[in-house]
Amino acid sequence: MKKALFAAVVGIFTLTVSGTVLAQAKPETLVKQRQAAMTLQSKYFGPMGGMAQGKIPYNADVVKRNTAYLDVLSKLPWDGFTASTKDVKSKARPAVYSEAAKFKEAQDHFDGEVAKLVTAVSGGNEAAIKTQIGAVAKSCGGCHDDFKDK
Amino acid sequence: MKKALFAAVVGIFTLTVSGTVLAQAKPETLVKQRQAAMTLQSKYFGPMGGMAQGKIPYNADVVKRNTAYLDVLSKLPWDGFTASTKDVKSKARPAVYSEAAKFKEAQDHFDGEVAKLVTAVSGGNEAAIKTQIGAVAKSCGGCHDDFKDK
Repeated sequence: MKKALFAAVVGIFTLTVSGTVLAQAKPETLVKQRQAAMTLQSKYFGPMGGMAQGKIPYNADVVKRNTAYLDVLSKLPWDGFTASTKDVKSKARPAVYSEAAKFKEAQDHFDGEVAKLVTAVSGGNEAAIKTQIGAVAKSCGGCHDDFKDK
Repeated sequence: MKKALFAAVVGIFTLTVSGTVLAQAKPETLVKQRQAAMTLQSKYFGPMGGMAQGKIPYNADVVKRNTAYLDVLSKLPWDGFTASTKDVKSKARPAVYSEAAKFKEAQDHFDGEVAKLVTAVSGGNEAAIKTQIGAVAKSCGGCHDDFKDK
């Protein structure tokens, strides 16, 4: 009885690709998951961008929390850009698939800038943090320019 | 020039609610963000559920990584269930809004089970980890039963 309940509860989850553990997830699922990661990056990075620009008051606690979230979220989209997703409607440009090495480089650049933001936030220097928020924004925008439709 | 570029790049992000820093985000945005968090919880919890049930081989590295991700993802949906989202089409049941205290209790229960999974994973005992994965699944399902349409 207990086992059956557990099976039913786990059944509500779509078993998806995770490293080499599972068979490939459906292309539509991969696109939905990578878009979800981008949506949450935007949720938590957006306010920091506003703070760096002076559009909203700087809040060190929010910056600390959002940066910690972003440190995880920045890692989540990339395994969703498999060749199997090429024909799924999305804002990903053909270059995602035809220029895979350049796309990987742009991902790594972004991940590196987020890592530097984590370091800056540990340091606690507001000016340095704001500068690094700008560098993260630039790395997002640089990748979007080449690999994402407006 | 550099400043203008930064402004343009940050402009690609939707500035959204984050604690008390910003004005309330649009209800549709909040729904999209909370659904994104659920989508990613499913991406990373799903395989662990499969492992706990013996449907796929147990992989300690994947469990460690996915649990660390889930530790963050488990915190992200809840501020998206504001009263302002009541009339946005989604699978959230009216009870989300009419039984807010009970809904909060279900969130806290889930967050607590995830915290216990983090502890179990640190301990490294496969049987204990699988049992706790089951407890997390039960806390997901319990909340979905009451607060989410099928």
